Amino acid sequence: MRIFGVTKNKIRIIDNVNGSIMHGLKRSDDDFKGFGEVYFSHVKYKTIKAWKRHKRMTMNLVVPIGLVKFVFFNQDQKVFEEYEIGPNNYFRLSVEPMIWFGFQGLGEGVNLVMNLANIEHEPDEVERIDFCDIDYIW
Amino acid sequence: MRIFGVTKNKIRIIDNVNGSIMHGLKRSDDDFKGFGEVYFSHVKYKTIKAWKRHKRMTMNLVVPIGLVKFVFFNQDQKVFEEYEIGPNNYFRLSVEPMIWFGFQGLGEGVNLVMNLANIEHEPDEVERIDFCDIDYIW
Repeated sequence: MRIFGVTKNKIRIIDNVNGSIMHGLKRSDDDFKGFGEVYFSHVKYKTIKAWKRHKRMTMNLVVPIGLVKFVFFNQDQKVFEEYEIGPNNYFRLSVEPMIWFGFQGLGEGVNLVMNLANIEHEPDEVERIDFCDIDYIW
Repeated sequence: MRIFGVTKNKIRIIDNVNGSIMHGLKRSDDDFKGFGEVYFSHVKYKTIKAWKRHKRMTMNLVVPIGLVKFVFFNQDQKVFEEYEIGPNNYFRLSVEPMIWFGFQGLGEGVNLVMNLANIEHEPDEVERIDFCDIDYIW
């Protein structure tokens, strides 16, 4: 069973001798749900940040540097889904509200996540539970 | 004389033991002019990409990795302005249409530029001239 609430879209890298261009998100993309804020999260090698979910935020996640594993958990379905994304597997993940997620740095150097969110950050909109509260073997 | 059409805004890095958060741009920021597209440009060490200007695009430039020198030239004023930005000097540059610009990678590793633009990329909207067409000593 596929998880509901998470979509994966191939995005392009345009190589250039002086430095490549990496697409992110366009207003005309199907999974664009409005612009609230763009920010970056670093995640260190082997470090896991889990678990969080947003009550209202739709996330659009891109990893321009490194390699990051994302795990999503849909509590209604009791279904997990895993993705490893970075420049060598260049996809954008779009994640609807109410999906639990965690992520782990897999690159030994910098692992950089861009989130383009449909709303601005609001502390009350985020739920956090402990790493052990969802039974998943990282 | 200050250049018209370019503004510089301090943005925050929030340190965290598992990996920091770096602000980019929020809808409520004064220099947000609409969302068209977000993309990344790499620029290699010592490489210069110059000169370009946009007829309609307002750029919002952030350098989450590395160090990048930007040079802006306002042709009406005949004024240059230079900025070096990166995580250790973390500012967002907002650049109105019709400003000539070039940029150079100063970091020996990865230099990554995020541009959050108010319109989607359109080839006809970009003007390019040769490196030598504007008299600037890099």
